[in-house]
Amino acid sequence: MVRRGMAGMAALGVCVVVVFAFASLGLASAEGGVDEAIKYATERHQQYVEELIELVKIPSISTLPEHEGDMRKAANWVAGRCRKAGLENVEVLETGAQPIVYCDYIHAEGAPTILIYAHYDVQPADPFELWDHEPFEARSRNGRVEGRGASDDKSGVLLSIQAAEAVLQTSGGKLPVNVKYLLEGQEEIGSPNLEDFLSKSENQNRFAADLCFSADGGQLSEKQPRVITSLRGLAAVEVKVKTANSDMHSGTFGGAAPNALHVIADMVASLHDADGKVNIPGFYDDVALMTQQEKDNTEFPDELFEQGMRQDGVRAFPGERGFGSYERTTVRPTLEITGLWGGFQGDGVKTIVPKEASVKIACRLVANQEAGKIQQLVRDHITKIAPDYAELTFTGGSFDKAQPYAVGFDAPSSVIAKKVLEDTFKEPALFLKMGGTIPAMKLFREKVGAESALLGFSEADNLLHAPNEFMRESIYHRGREVYIRLFHEVANYHHGTAAGKEEL
Amino acid sequence: MVRRGMAGMAALGVCVVVVFAFASLGLASAEGGVDEAIKYATERHQQYVEELIELVKIPSISTLPEHEGDMRKAANWVAGRCRKAGLENVEVLETGAQPIVYCDYIHAEGAPTILIYAHYDVQPADPFELWDHEPFEARSRNGRVEGRGASDDKSGVLLSIQAAEAVLQTSGGKLPVNVKYLLEGQEEIGSPNLEDFLSKSENQNRFAADLCFSADGGQLSEKQPRVITSLRGLAAVEVKVKTANSDMHSGTFGGAAPNALHVIADMVASLHDADGKVNIPGFYDDVALMTQQEKDNTEFPDELFEQGMRQDGVRAFPGERGFGSYERTTVRPTLEITGLWGGFQGDGVKTIVPKEASVKIACRLVANQEAGKIQQLVRDHITKIAPDYAELTFTGGSFDKAQPYAVGFDAPSSVIAKKVLEDTFKEPALFLKMGGTIPAMKLFREKVGAESALLGFSEADNLLHAPNEFMRESIYHRGREVYIRLFHEVANYHHGTAAGKEEL
Repeated sequence: MVRRGMAGMAALGVCVVVVFAFASLGLASAEGGVDEAIKYATERHQQYVEELIELVKIPSISTLPEHEGDMRKAANWVAGRCRKAGLENVEVLETGAQPIVYCDYIHAEGAPTILIYAHYDVQPADPFELWDHEPFEARSRNGRVEGRGASDDKSGVLLSIQAAEAVLQTSGGKLPVNVKYLLEGQEEIGSPNLEDFLSKSENQNRFAADLCFSADGGQLSEKQPRVITSLRGLAAVEVKVKTANSDMHSGTFGGAAPNALHVIADMVASLHDADGKVNIPGFYDDVALMTQQEKDNTEFPDELFEQGMRQDGVRAFPGERGFGSYERTTVRPTLEITGLWGGFQGDGVKTIVPKEASVKIACRLVANQEAGKIQQLVRDHITKIAPDYAELTFTGGSFDKAQPYAVGFDAPSSVIAKKVLEDTFKEPALFLKMGGTIPAMKLFREKVGAESALLGFSEADNLLHAPNEFMRESIYHRGREVYIRLFHEVANYHHGTAAGKEEL
Repeated sequence: MVRRGMAGMAALGVCVVVVFAFASLGLASAEGGVDEAIKYATERHQQYVEELIELVKIPSISTLPEHEGDMRKAANWVAGRCRKAGLENVEVLETGAQPIVYCDYIHAEGAPTILIYAHYDVQPADPFELWDHEPFEARSRNGRVEGRGASDDKSGVLLSIQAAEAVLQTSGGKLPVNVKYLLEGQEEIGSPNLEDFLSKSENQNRFAADLCFSADGGQLSEKQPRVITSLRGLAAVEVKVKTANSDMHSGTFGGAAPNALHVIADMVASLHDADGKVNIPGFYDDVALMTQQEKDNTEFPDELFEQGMRQDGVRAFPGERGFGSYERTTVRPTLEITGLWGGFQGDGVKTIVPKEASVKIACRLVANQEAGKIQQLVRDHITKIAPDYAELTFTGGSFDKAQPYAVGFDAPSSVIAKKVLEDTFKEPALFLKMGGTIPAMKLFREKVGAESALLGFSEADNLLHAPNEFMRESIYHRGREVYIRLFHEVANYHHGTAAGKEEL
């Protein structure tokens, strides 16, 4: 882990030697401030809830162009909150689309630099009729803040800023580590501009860090703290199959004319074998199997996953044979048909032989699959199996690939995250793999040299992306304490290298 | 054929003996009027073209509720044209929906009664951008009347009325046969109200007839006159497959949650076997194979069918093995997926596991398949092959079944139609089977006891149901001559029984 972290920094032109030369300096004044900072924060719980409600009320839906103004409003609101917290160099940075809020506190000379990640954009709120209240009329009820984005991820944005404020206010205006924030507005649309943004040399310098902690991420529950150490990636392919220039009359030509929907159904049906495996040669070639060490350190909460699906009307789990629901959704790649359409969709009967049909395919990837390679593999395979009378057109989306990310249990980011979770929740913090995708993690490894731990506080039942999303106030407050401890723990972890601990 | 015809009339309570007692009376005055009637009509070609243009300008689209007023307008226009022709008892009859225009001339005592069928409703005109002109701004250009419905079937409505007028005007106000017209406004939506309408006793009496000739139907071309002796039927089934109550996040649950689109694609792909046969046990049980006599009297214009499809971008014809394109589209039943949809259809990527998917299935049926039986067979089969974790909902359409229809080459309707076509076109009139559906033919057999010949004049290249539909004026005029001859031929055919010809 040391080697990877150092190599990352070296690649960025950061002088590792100089950084480590200051390792034992300037940390004393910030030490021992955890209790005071937590006390400061606890006295402000009501205010922090009100701040979350205020931020949720801004409908910052990144995917809908009509909310562009709300995106700006949310970014400026967040930037203002950073300033109020005492964080410095606050900027709303342009990306060519939804802006990134940056701020930092880099006065802990010799201490490591951590990058805190979160996002202020949210999913659309439809279907509206399934909400118990107006989705952006956020409110506090029964110990929960209710509203779109309350959990994912406006709580993460706020609690990580508030944690810095609490430490700054109780430690004489000092933080024990150097902190940078990257608070983005594109997570829900797959961060399409983030790679270009981080590839610019001024941003590689601006965001250079030793470790990253993502305040976007989840916990099973308040009683079951978890460190998430892997994310799946994504490779999406859309293809249109065309068999004629017009829909044909099924009376006159039905039986003789090729039917685009028959072609596409045959192809789609062939993409999985009888064991539920993806039936594309080479698809699994780069899949990293779980090591014995990983298996020993992992629980397999199949029941928890299945219970959530059962509540949503699912009656059975016909996935890849040989794996349980937890593995299927985290360490195994998938190929899902996310949309398929062709022919007539109106009421009643239209007697046509459809001329074309389209399918959207989204593969979830795991380490060490490469998104572009899998995308090409799927395209090539479809081209190969399509009958030669079918014309294929592949169309890309604005977010059609993201790399998977996995980090070891023994990486400093993992070890530190585990410790601060356990110190706060007083429960063992197990490691967990996550099926979803956050494109930023892999980019931070590649562009700013930092490995990430997911240290977010959405709970499994928070209805993310769904109607009636909510955030429990208790875990919102405890998550803030986790970040307060984090600032100190990183400093101690690093500071403690002299006592035999691993260096960052 | 005699037995069938007489049985039909007996069922209707018509006294067959009395009818035939007048067989040799009252026909002299109308005989020999063919040439005069054709001369009369020829002098009015320009007027008849203008009438067709006028009728096409009324956008009588039966499937679109916003054209209800146009449907009434067209029905009244047609009724007026019948009155002007000298036809009697003209009525616009209510069906509960689009009305039927009725008129008759029943003064040829002792002569048979023929029912002439056509329809004044038309298909919608979209996609509008593919038309060379406004679809209802009908016009005459290069010997064609261009516009939606010019061929299908407003030409049929008009030429059959104009034929009666020409005979009436040149034969002292008499027709040699008894004629009844059923001009309907629901053919393009599958005649949903026709069965109930014809089941009423007053309508069974009103429409009772010995033979039916449909002025809706087609010719290969003016050089290739054809008598169509069979039509395919239809059995449509729509099914929705549901695997969960909500779309699920493909990151969190993808791999473990069932995907409704995978289920539906698997089912659809299994509905045909590798030979292109419908893979549902029992589907072919009642299919009448072509007899050797039928084969001997049939041409197999595979090339003509394929040429039409090739012009529309089709590259190959992957149908039921062992049959050519003509048989596949006429005497073989089919199962077509006419629509399929599920999941996300917008731009870009939405990372869901779709909760539900729907498919529309339309089977074209041939004699002696029964539409209701096949519909049930398809439903039962889908229920059987669906995985038990999928919830199925079958939904019906307003037009989800129609019976196939076939009549022998030696039926009087077939023999007469062949003769008048050959007398007019001076070409051999072969028999042809048609893949489309006209629900009225089977209903006329069942409800008014009349067997039908299809004697319509749409040519194979007239772009029916498509942009730039047109009707050649030359065949419009010759079709009228066919009907003029028909009136006399039916009388002669019947009259000639004394000379050894078959009775009707």
